Amino acid sequence: MTDGQLMRGFPPKPGEQVTLENFENFPYLRWGFLNMRRLLPTANVSREPSNACALEHAPRDLDSIRFESSDGSAMTVAQLVEDGYTDGFIVLIDGRIAIEQYFNDLRPDQPHLLQSVTKSFAGSLAGILVERGVLDPDAPVVDIIPEIAGSAYGDATLRHVLDMTVGIEFREDYEDPTSEVGILTAAIGWLPRVDFETPDGLRHFLSTLKPAGDHGAKFHYVSANTELLGWVLERVSGLSFAELLGREIWQPMGAECDAYITLDRLGAPVACGGLCVTLRDLARFGQLHLQGGAVDGRQIVPHSWIEDTLTRGDNEAWRRGEFVKQWPKGSYRNQWWISGDDHGVYAGFGIHGQVVYVDPAAGVVIAKQSTHPLAWDEKRFSDLLCGFRAIGREFTS
Amino acid sequence: MTDGQLMRGFPPKPGEQVTLENFENFPYLRWGFLNMRRLLPTANVSREPSNACALEHAPRDLDSIRFESSDGSAMTVAQLVEDGYTDGFIVLIDGRIAIEQYFNDLRPDQPHLLQSVTKSFAGSLAGILVERGVLDPDAPVVDIIPEIAGSAYGDATLRHVLDMTVGIEFREDYEDPTSEVGILTAAIGWLPRVDFETPDGLRHFLSTLKPAGDHGAKFHYVSANTELLGWVLERVSGLSFAELLGREIWQPMGAECDAYITLDRLGAPVACGGLCVTLRDLARFGQLHLQGGAVDGRQIVPHSWIEDTLTRGDNEAWRRGEFVKQWPKGSYRNQWWISGDDHGVYAGFGIHGQVVYVDPAAGVVIAKQSTHPLAWDEKRFSDLLCGFRAIGREFTS
Repeated sequence: MTDGQLMRGFPPKPGEQVTLENFENFPYLRWGFLNMRRLLPTANVSREPSNACALEHAPRDLDSIRFESSDGSAMTVAQLVEDGYTDGFIVLIDGRIAIEQYFNDLRPDQPHLLQSVTKSFAGSLAGILVERGVLDPDAPVVDIIPEIAGSAYGDATLRHVLDMTVGIEFREDYEDPTSEVGILTAAIGWLPRVDFETPDGLRHFLSTLKPAGDHGAKFHYVSANTELLGWVLERVSGLSFAELLGREIWQPMGAECDAYITLDRLGAPVACGGLCVTLRDLARFGQLHLQGGAVDGRQIVPHSWIEDTLTRGDNEAWRRGEFVKQWPKGSYRNQWWISGDDHGVYAGFGIHGQVVYVDPAAGVVIAKQSTHPLAWDEKRFSDLLCGFRAIGREFTS
Repeated sequence: MTDGQLMRGFPPKPGEQVTLENFENFPYLRWGFLNMRRLLPTANVSREPSNACALEHAPRDLDSIRFESSDGSAMTVAQLVEDGYTDGFIVLIDGRIAIEQYFNDLRPDQPHLLQSVTKSFAGSLAGILVERGVLDPDAPVVDIIPEIAGSAYGDATLRHVLDMTVGIEFREDYEDPTSEVGILTAAIGWLPRVDFETPDGLRHFLSTLKPAGDHGAKFHYVSANTELLGWVLERVSGLSFAELLGREIWQPMGAECDAYITLDRLGAPVACGGLCVTLRDLARFGQLHLQGGAVDGRQIVPHSWIEDTLTRGDNEAWRRGEFVKQWPKGSYRNQWWISGDDHGVYAGFGIHGQVVYVDPAAGVVIAKQSTHPLAWDEKRFSDLLCGFRAIGREFTS
C-alpha cells in the first residue's frame, strides 16, 4: 500500500482509513497532516485578502549544492529534499523565492500541520504582548493562570515557560502513550477516547503536572509548556489564539491563505503543535523574523523581542539538555531554537520534519514540510542542518 | 445567563461551555450553530474567488407587511423576524437584496448551520448527476451501495430515497436519544461518546436500519435517507460531498464565501444536516433554483430536474404523511418541500428555524437562519409560512 491509496473510496477500505487512531503513524500521517481539519475541531486563522502580498520569484540552482552529510558522505540538496518524505520545500533569498517545490499531495494553497513549529508562533505572539506591557516574562505564571497553583508551574515564571527551563516531571517520548506527552496527546483530542479516565481537555491536564528539579537550571523540552503559554496568551489578550494570531501576525504580514489550529473539546488551542499553514505562509513567517519583525515598514513582532530571542539564550541550561550535539553553542529562547553559529541561524522545528529556518547572515529563509516516518530521526535531522547550512554558505557574499 | 456570555473566557466557565453535550440545546445552540467547525471535523466547500458575484441591493420596506398569523392574530414581517431567535434574514426580489438583516452574533461572512436545508443541496446535486446519466432515480439503491443489502434500503430505489417514501423503521424524534434519529446523531459524532456500544460512524449505522411497510406508499421524513443519498453521491462521482458541491454548485453559482460540512470519524459527510453556509450564499442557492438552475446563462442544476421537482411530487404519499396541515396540496420531491400552492412555492427547511424559500410567481427568494429554542415549533413554523406567503403576495404584480 502506498499512502496515495489512503482515504480513497467511500468509505475507504478498512486498512486505508486515516483516523485519530493512526494519523501520526507512517504511512497514514501524510494524509493526516494535510487534512487535520477533517479529523478534529479547528479554528480558522484569517488572512486579510486585501493585504495578501505575493512573493517574487528569483529562481536559483540549489539542487546541485553539495555538502558533507552527518556521517561524512557527500550529499546534494536535491538528495536531501527528494527523499520521498518532503511534502513542500521553499527557499527565500533576500525575500524572493529561489526554489519552491511540492511533492506528494501538497498544493500551494493547502495547509500542512506544523507540529512544534507552532511553538515559535506562540513565542512571537508572546513578544508582541510583552512589548505592549500586557505580559511580563519575569512574573510568576500563576499570577496569570491561578488554576495551575500546586502544579509544577506553581512557582515558575513565564520566562521559564518561554525558554523550556521549567522543573517538571514530563517525558516527551512520542513512542510511549503512557508518557506525559502521550497523555497530553489524548487530552488535546489527538487520540480517540479509549476509556473515560484519560483527561478530557487540555487545561485540566496542565494543572496536574508535577514538579521535578529547579526552574531555570536546564533546557527540558516540554510541549505542555507551550500549551500553558497558549493559555496565557488567550487569558491576557481576551482573544482566542486563532484570533490573536490572525490579528497580530497573519493579517499584517500579508499571509496568502487562511491557516487553522486544532482545538480540544473546550476550544483550547493546541499551541504546542496544532497549527496548519501553507508552505509559502510558513516562509513568510520566517522572512518576517529575518526582517527584524517588520514588513513594509510596519513593525509586527517587536525588534527588541527578536534581539532578545537571538542574543539572550542560556547556553549553560542548553548544555545540560538533550540537543547539544547538533548545536553546541546553541540555546532555546522564546520558543525558538538558536544555533549560536557564525551566521546567527535560528529555527522552529517540528516532529516528522517540519522546519522554518532563518539564516540572517545569508538573508536566507527555508521552510520545509514533511512526513518522515519517524517522529524524531536524528540522522535526517542532522543531515538537514548540514544541507541548510550549505545553502546559507552558498549565498553569503 | 444570556447566550452572549457563552464560550467567553479561557476556559469558559463550566455553565457557559458549549460542547457536543449541549450544542443543539437552548441557549447553547446559537454559539454552536455559528461555530460547528470548532466542535467537529469538517470539510471545506471552496468558492471560486474570481467568480464570486456580489448581489445588488434594491431595498424595499418589508417590515411593515401585515399578515394573519396561524392563530388568526395580526402580525407584521418585522414581528416575525425580530423574535430574538432570528440570526439572519434576507429577501431577494428579482435577484436583488430587498432586505438583509443580521442579529445576535451572525456576520455576513460567517457560515451558520443549515440543519436539514442541507438535504436540498444533496437533492440538487443528485439532479446534476442524473442529467449526466451517472445516476438513475429508478434503479435499486443497492446496485450503487451493496453494503445496505438486507437493510430497509435493500429493495428501495433511489427515487424512494429522494422522495422520502422508503418503508423503514425510523423515528425522527429529536427529543428522544433512543429514537433512530438519536442514534444517527451519535453515529455522525454530534454527541459525545458515552459508551462503546453506540455505532461509531454513519455508514455502518445505515446498513442496520430495518424495513417497515412498503416503499413508495407514504411520505415518511427520515434523515437517514439523505445520509444514504450523500453516500450515493460520493460513490458514483468519486468525489467527496464537499468537493462535489464545490465544483458543481458553489463555484459556478458564484458563492461569496467558502462553506463547510461536518464529517463523521471516517470522513462521511453529514448530508442530512451538516452544511454550514453564509446567509447570502443560502439566498444565492435559492435564486439559482428560481432562475431554473442557471446563472448568467450557465446551466448548473438541470432545468428538467427542477421541473421534475416542482411538478412530479406525490400528493397521495404526502397526504399519508405528517405535514399535511400546512400544505394540503403539497409533496416532498428530490429533497425539497413543494407547497402545491398557486405561487408554486417550494422550500428547504431545517430544525430550529433554517429556511430557503422560493416563490417563483413573485420572483422572491427568502433565506432565514435561526436558533429557535425548540427543534420543531409548529406555531412558529406556521406563522413563518403565513409571513413568507404575504411577502410573495406583496411583490406579485
